[in-house]
Amino acid sequence: MPLALNKEELMTYLSEVFPQVADDFALDALSEDCLTMRLLVADRHLRPGGTVSGPSMFALADCATYAMVLARVGRQALAVTTGCSMDFMRKPDGSVDMIAEIRLLKLGRSLAVGDILLFSEGSDKPVARATMTYSIPPQGSAAAVAG
Amino acid sequence: MPLALNKEELMTYLSEVFPQVADDFALDALSEDCLTMRLLVADRHLRPGGTVSGPSMFALADCATYAMVLARVGRQALAVTTGCSMDFMRKPDGSVDMIAEIRLLKLGRSLAVGDILLFSEGSDKPVARATMTYSIPPQGSAAAVAG
Amino acid sequence: MPLALNKEELMTYLSEVFPQVADDFALDALSEDCLTMRLLVADRHLRPGGTVSGPSMFALADCATYAMVLARVGRQALAVTTGCSMDFMRKPDGSVDMIAEIRLLKLGRSLAVGDILLFSEGSDKPVARATMTYSIPPQGSAAAVAG
Amino acid sequence: MPLALNKEELMTYLSEVFPQVADDFALDALSEDCLTMRLLVADRHLRPGGTVSGPSMFALADCATYAMVLARVGRQALAVTTGCSMDFMRKPDGSVDMIAEIRLLKLGRSLAVGDILLFSEGSDKPVARATMTYSIPPQGSAAAVAG
Repeated sequence: MPLALNKEELMTYLSEVFPQVADDFALDALSEDCLTMRLLVADRHLRPGGTVSGPSMFALADCATYAMVLARVGRQALAVTTGCSMDFMRKPDGSVDMIAEIRLLKLGRSLAVGDILLFSEGSDKPVARATMTYSIPPQGSAAAVAG
Repeated sequence: MPLALNKEELMTYLSEVFPQVADDFALDALSEDCLTMRLLVADRHLRPGGTVSGPSMFALADCATYAMVLARVGRQALAVTTGCSMDFMRKPDGSVDMIAEIRLLKLGRSLAVGDILLFSEGSDKPVARATMTYSIPPQGSAAAVAG
Repeated sequence: MPLALNKEELMTYLSEVFPQVADDFALDALSEDCLTMRLLVADRHLRPGGTVSGPSMFALADCATYAMVLARVGRQALAVTTGCSMDFMRKPDGSVDMIAEIRLLKLGRSLAVGDILLFSEGSDKPVARATMTYSIPPQGSAAAVAG
Repeated sequence: MPLALNKEELMTYLSEVFPQVADDFALDALSEDCLTMRLLVADRHLRPGGTVSGPSMFALADCATYAMVLARVGRQALAVTTGCSMDFMRKPDGSVDMIAEIRLLKLGRSLAVGDILLFSEGSDKPVARATMTYSIPPQGSAAAVAG
């Protein structure tokens, strides 16, 4: 199934509907089922001890899923997160960027599921994993639960 | 089982080890198994459309769990989040504070589990639920996975 | 919001659409937002060591949610589980029944979320917690994802 | 890191400590970080409509994780499930076996995390995904939470 938005179109659209994205995130790669997003780690993402905060990791996983879904369904800003599960497995390195690799497991008419691994750049051992589920509103509706 | 820290001791300790807490969170109530924490909703917690962002809800659930665990085990800053699951069920109201009510389901020697409901102040319908699991390092160790 | 089925109607319907229920489960209590279901623990539910197996606990939490949803929406056998999270916190006692208490957190047009605590009968410390999400097909459709 | 048990040693040990395994499951493949397990689908695993039941899918994901952990840590029957999350994404085909592919994301001294995809044999679209966390008791201890 083809992409509805290419990499440049996707970043432009994300910056419009979700302006804080441009400060925090960069899009490294995009294919039909996978996307790689980078958290540009800065002081505001850190916890004492020099690790990346949990909320920052959640934000990265969530944003990567949102971007992956939009890349496939097009400009539907109202897609909303309905669920997540995360496991935090290793201490992140706060001195480098954090990389999220998402694989889209399902894209149905109303529900999408993505699996995400988070890495500190330069390491191949995941610091965390996440699953995010998104609700996609029917065309023309004014949806939204949370996110 | 008694509390190791009372409400005032807990907030003082949280402010020391986790300074951003004081800006974002307030502790409304504390008992042996339950704690109520408030997110002081400000512009930086909002998404377009006037809802509270997912990362802000994650941060509130996480901070409430951390505080509940410390209230019971005492000053052990190194307790770390190892897992979470969340369901986002209703659109939060960005014009009021968000309230987290946590119930501690288990406090073992090395693992704690808390169930959290999140409400927009003034509503009795939860906007989200969360479960957070925490790893508690053995006394004297230098632990830490993530957070 | 009133119940669509009372306790007797619910058990009769469950036995029709899901015959194995009658052998394994009993319905102890039902109100608008809460339901108590019992696993009639038998040898086939046990693991070596005399504990109740994980799949049996999953089945109990899942069946309690299915029953709670049907009690509210009526005879819609095609409601399907779309997600679950569970935490196993204490060793269950295989010599007594297991009790599930479910609280319905959300019942939307297409999605339901229930929180479940599982207890070995006679103990007030939960052996496990679960969250189950259900997809409810639109009236008249032939739905189904899994279950 | 090498395997503590090869494929034959693992199946022999599983059959000793967990006798029902031999009836329900077969081990298709094993490497250092991945394992493929098969549910030998029979009538007792089915739901009305010819789909594989949720508890059977849970059992497959759980057993695959248990086997993967034992393959690495050796004969430690007391490893126990402490948490799981699952998403059910497509309707399973009850007329063929179900295949679980597990990837071990973390194996620490006391905690293991595995990500599992479940497929109906012959399809490359996952019917479900799961994450299982296991607690590994210290050598010589008599552990156990649940499972």
